[in-house]
Amino acid sequence: MKELFGGPGKVSGLILRVGQCFFAAASIAVMVSAHGFFNSTAFCYLIASMGLQFLWSFGLACLDLHALKSNKNLQNPTLVSLFVVGDWVTAVLSLAAASSAAGVTVLYAKDLDYCKSPLHLPCSRFQISVSLAFLSWFLLAVSSHVMFWLLAAV
Amino acid sequence: MKELFGGPGKVSGLILRVGQCFFAAASIAVMVSAHGFFNSTAFCYLIASMGLQFLWSFGLACLDLHALKSNKNLQNPTLVSLFVVGDWVTAVLSLAAASSAAGVTVLYAKDLDYCKSPLHLPCSRFQISVSLAFLSWFLLAVSSHVMFWLLAAV
Repeated sequence: MKELFGGPGKVSGLILRVGQCFFAAASIAVMVSAHGFFNSTAFCYLIASMGLQFLWSFGLACLDLHALKSNKNLQNPTLVSLFVVGDWVTAVLSLAAASSAAGVTVLYAKDLDYCKSPLHLPCSRFQISVSLAFLSWFLLAVSSHVMFWLLAAV
Repeated sequence: MKELFGGPGKVSGLILRVGQCFFAAASIAVMVSAHGFFNSTAFCYLIASMGLQFLWSFGLACLDLHALKSNKNLQNPTLVSLFVVGDWVTAVLSLAAASSAAGVTVLYAKDLDYCKSPLHLPCSRFQISVSLAFLSWFLLAVSSHVMFWLLAAV
């Protein structure tokens, strides 16, 4: 298998996974701290999806770390196929969650004007959480493209 | 280059492109026929994104038809790279648009109860339009994965 930036069992791959975990956890934390988020299904879905992404990326980060420490090679077709499927499913769910939350945030902030009085929804927190979710998704998209390329180039 | 289902200049590729055009156009038509769609940015974005996808898929369908009629081979790396970039950009925009519209539709239908009186928003039309957009995105996702695989496997 080719050696690519962000491949499994490499330092660049580990950095990508840690970034995904960090942004997913930050997105959840900011969303949970915004009062009234549970009134919208899209925001609850964002938390669930970022939770899934956090677990997936955290697991792969641990695997990368283990491979780096014990000098193991993770680049075999069966393992990479598994990474590809997991990465793609998580990436699609994350993009869908971030976009649906973004749609609802824009509706609140721009179309319905719910951020001003009397409702005073914490729109800035929703926006920060959605931005962090998009960042996390972007890093996951890089990882999943690298994995897919590795698998196809076998 | 390998011969794959849904590759450029093949009958299966043409069918995928025609399906993408059809579902994108149907999604736009249903959304435009729903009164009050323009009050939500997400629905306007869905129309714009489905319009872009329609144009892109229609162009590639014409190219596939031309290649099939004149028996030309479209599978050279430069052309496939172009298809990959276009397909991926369109697919990400389409999924984002369909998801944000879905988020707003669920908010209207379930969280805010705007579908009942006195507002009577045409939620069933929104739902049909979003479903058609997801179908169109799914076919585009198949095409873009095939293109990426072809490019990686050169």
